[in-house]
Amino acid sequence: MSTAVATTGSSTGSKPYDELLGLLREAAVLDSVRSLLGWDQETEMPPKAAPFRAEQLSMVATLAHKRFTDPRIGDLIGECESDSNLTSDDEAAANLREIRRSYDRATKLPPELVAEITKLDSEGLHVWKEARLQSDFEMFRPILEKQFEINRRKAECYGAPQGGELYDALIEDFEPGMSAKAIDEIFTPLRADLAAIISELRPKAKQIEGTPAAFGASVDLQRKFVKFIAESVGYDFKAGAIAVSTHPFSETIGVHDSRITTRYEEENWPVAVATTLHEAGHSMYEQGLRPEKFGQPLGQYLSLGIHESQSRMWENQVGRSRAFWSWALPKAQAHFDGPIKSFSLDDMVKAVNSIRPSFIRVESDEATYNFHIMLRFDIEKMVMREELKPADIPALWKERIKADLGIDVPDDRHGCLQDIHWAMGSVGYFPTYTLGNLYCAQMWETINEQIPDLDEQTSRGEFTQLLSWLRTNVHTHGRRYTAPKLCERITGRPLSHKPLVAYLDAKLREIYGL
Amino acid sequence: MSTAVATTGSSTGSKPYDELLGLLREAAVLDSVRSLLGWDQETEMPPKAAPFRAEQLSMVATLAHKRFTDPRIGDLIGECESDSNLTSDDEAAANLREIRRSYDRATKLPPELVAEITKLDSEGLHVWKEARLQSDFEMFRPILEKQFEINRRKAECYGAPQGGELYDALIEDFEPGMSAKAIDEIFTPLRADLAAIISELRPKAKQIEGTPAAFGASVDLQRKFVKFIAESVGYDFKAGAIAVSTHPFSETIGVHDSRITTRYEEENWPVAVATTLHEAGHSMYEQGLRPEKFGQPLGQYLSLGIHESQSRMWENQVGRSRAFWSWALPKAQAHFDGPIKSFSLDDMVKAVNSIRPSFIRVESDEATYNFHIMLRFDIEKMVMREELKPADIPALWKERIKADLGIDVPDDRHGCLQDIHWAMGSVGYFPTYTLGNLYCAQMWETINEQIPDLDEQTSRGEFTQLLSWLRTNVHTHGRRYTAPKLCERITGRPLSHKPLVAYLDAKLREIYGL
Repeated sequence: MSTAVATTGSSTGSKPYDELLGLLREAAVLDSVRSLLGWDQETEMPPKAAPFRAEQLSMVATLAHKRFTDPRIGDLIGECESDSNLTSDDEAAANLREIRRSYDRATKLPPELVAEITKLDSEGLHVWKEARLQSDFEMFRPILEKQFEINRRKAECYGAPQGGELYDALIEDFEPGMSAKAIDEIFTPLRADLAAIISELRPKAKQIEGTPAAFGASVDLQRKFVKFIAESVGYDFKAGAIAVSTHPFSETIGVHDSRITTRYEEENWPVAVATTLHEAGHSMYEQGLRPEKFGQPLGQYLSLGIHESQSRMWENQVGRSRAFWSWALPKAQAHFDGPIKSFSLDDMVKAVNSIRPSFIRVESDEATYNFHIMLRFDIEKMVMREELKPADIPALWKERIKADLGIDVPDDRHGCLQDIHWAMGSVGYFPTYTLGNLYCAQMWETINEQIPDLDEQTSRGEFTQLLSWLRTNVHTHGRRYTAPKLCERITGRPLSHKPLVAYLDAKLREIYGL
Repeated sequence: MSTAVATTGSSTGSKPYDELLGLLREAAVLDSVRSLLGWDQETEMPPKAAPFRAEQLSMVATLAHKRFTDPRIGDLIGECESDSNLTSDDEAAANLREIRRSYDRATKLPPELVAEITKLDSEGLHVWKEARLQSDFEMFRPILEKQFEINRRKAECYGAPQGGELYDALIEDFEPGMSAKAIDEIFTPLRADLAAIISELRPKAKQIEGTPAAFGASVDLQRKFVKFIAESVGYDFKAGAIAVSTHPFSETIGVHDSRITTRYEEENWPVAVATTLHEAGHSMYEQGLRPEKFGQPLGQYLSLGIHESQSRMWENQVGRSRAFWSWALPKAQAHFDGPIKSFSLDDMVKAVNSIRPSFIRVESDEATYNFHIMLRFDIEKMVMREELKPADIPALWKERIKADLGIDVPDDRHGCLQDIHWAMGSVGYFPTYTLGNLYCAQMWETINEQIPDLDEQTSRGEFTQLLSWLRTNVHTHGRRYTAPKLCERITGRPLSHKPLVAYLDAKLREIYGL
């Protein structure tokens, strides 16, 4: 039974390479168990089990890390790198490039620092929860300072890349090949163009505020509907599942096992649809990786930005489009009871595209969302460049939200305390969200060129060709190319802010009649 | 966070003993991860993930086994055994006795045999599923022969206990301290007495056959009701959860994490109540073990028979009693719709106690159930004594079911192919089911002597004193005593068939008006 998946042997005929892939697979199997512990923790685990779960997680993480950083793996990488048969093989060379990168990073951190980080992350989470609840920045400040300080030490261990800065070494964890400079070059014009759209839009946006009463539905009815939607777009339930959690996420637990969670608001079922499409987008990416490459970079998602491009495409480009709702609204009207039955397609498209500046990143619309990210990116960059002290973040936050979105942040809970990322020590993660939107919009342009009747297909509830395009052009490659390279390969151009701006401009102009 | 549970250090002041307990705890933490993999496999895992799950399970099992059989553990046991401070401490001595037993057994099997067993079990499961589906004994026969043969080799590695037989070495895995001879001495009079009751009952039993229409209810309503019942009897949902699986089971995933599954039949909600009480009984036992003894024999369930005594008590002695339904029926009538509202207490008690000989063990009633077990015990005993060939099991099966229950087995699917145990290589497991019923009935007598108003408490929906009795007298001890010893300690007598016979006789006499 256990042999049905395992085909790690490459066709290269290299013994060290096959041994290397075998060891990596073993480490990945062990690490996948950690994913199940994490999934279960958020979905099924009873509350009193939390301390013991931490023990289980820490034991498995330690064992998996130990396997991955085994000196034998280092030796084998070295042997493979000097074999020209391997380095001249496209796939083997890509695998080796990425294995080397991960191995070097994993072995560059001294064990004492790793232990310190683990402890601080756990403490950080704890303090942050309480500080957010009480909206008490001063309570959180020492953690924030320590997290930035320990991230600096981590970045110093990794070392700034050639011609780059320290912050880049952290970004590398989430978006390999990207740098603060490269991101700045895209974010700067993006900011200007988005600001122009938003300021034109603001007076018009008021007309569709509020949640329509037509969106009330029982959780049970919603559950059936989102399952239907997820199945329709191509999410494979034979290799996945949907559960419920407070903060929705997707998690791959192993080969043919990529699950998602969603959440239900009893007065607003489209939230569950959007959330499910988002998470299913993530999971369909994982379902499209090559199972026989499990444990190798070729069988791994490329970067967080590319991951996010997949979730955003299904949530936004598909799931907030007129074409989608011209198919999905009649289905919803047949499924749900009440005033939804007399809802017009125009109403629906407006409702799921309402533009409302929000204090909260995760509640933001497609257009204003990116301001939240650009703010966080600027803060990380400034702190890492020692141009800003963590203590001064709240003031900067309020100033920027006022300038960008025209609203006054009432307290830090609605400001710099809202996100878990810094509390957990993730510095360099935030920009990947907007990078995801950018990659997504740029791919979307190309997709629509290559599938000219995509809109018609969508309005008939046919998503096979779109998914198959993503499988062929994105999913199946794993880490064969870097993200910037993949983007050029697919779209013919380097990543730019223009497709996202053009997409939002055209869409909002139509909906709001600008 | 991870330190909230861990207090393995004993108060004995012995360094080797503390190190030993620490190592055992680590092995147990790792092994608990396997429990989660198993739980998830039956409840949430998507079907395509099965082959990879087998890899995960096998990797974690191998790692846990390796830790538990580490020669360092053997050395430490030896050191501790020669420390009279430890051997004169009741709890430490019990721990050492049981650690020695498990360690010796785990290290007595050569790794090649363990590998062979694992492979055969996996193959056996596969073949059995197909053979049962097609009711094809010949398809299953080679597996059955191999399983008995490999169990013989296993037993030979363990060695027959002093004055015992080979079969005893297998029983020891499930019911330490029991032997075929000891079981026979109890089963023989049990068989005679039960046969007398059944034959007297059979003409009367017809009057309450069939499932009352009043028992139809939606799964959603049933789910809420069984949750209420489980909570009422004392199952701690903060340290547990209920999910659904085809074959209900209970699983402890770690400290403060003992979960159960149940199943719902839309036309028969009392099935879900009985199943839930049964599994909650198992789980409440685990919830009553001392968390600080996790990983030590003192923090482990005593034997499968004792485990079963706990599940059966809540399912049968409590859950099929008049007292219980005098409390639960009005609750059910308030909760469910339809004809149940006019159901009388008499009807209810009769319905949940209907005696109907069945071909299928797991669908059997309290009285006839034990014939199914005694048959399987006799078969195992005869095969292990080389008095019966596996090929001759179907014929013996039909003959015995006819003689014991008066019904004609139509095919092997309803006969010797119905259970998973032999397919999975478990020989010696079956007798623990009836031992559980026996331990349960004998404890029940004592409990009713010591809590004279137990029935009144039950009819008010008060279960605290009963659970607390079980906590004090059974759960908290873990493996401090052997099962036969615990039974004597609690009830003042060695295990006997009489309390079970007396319990069934009194109950059925009342219900059927014999």
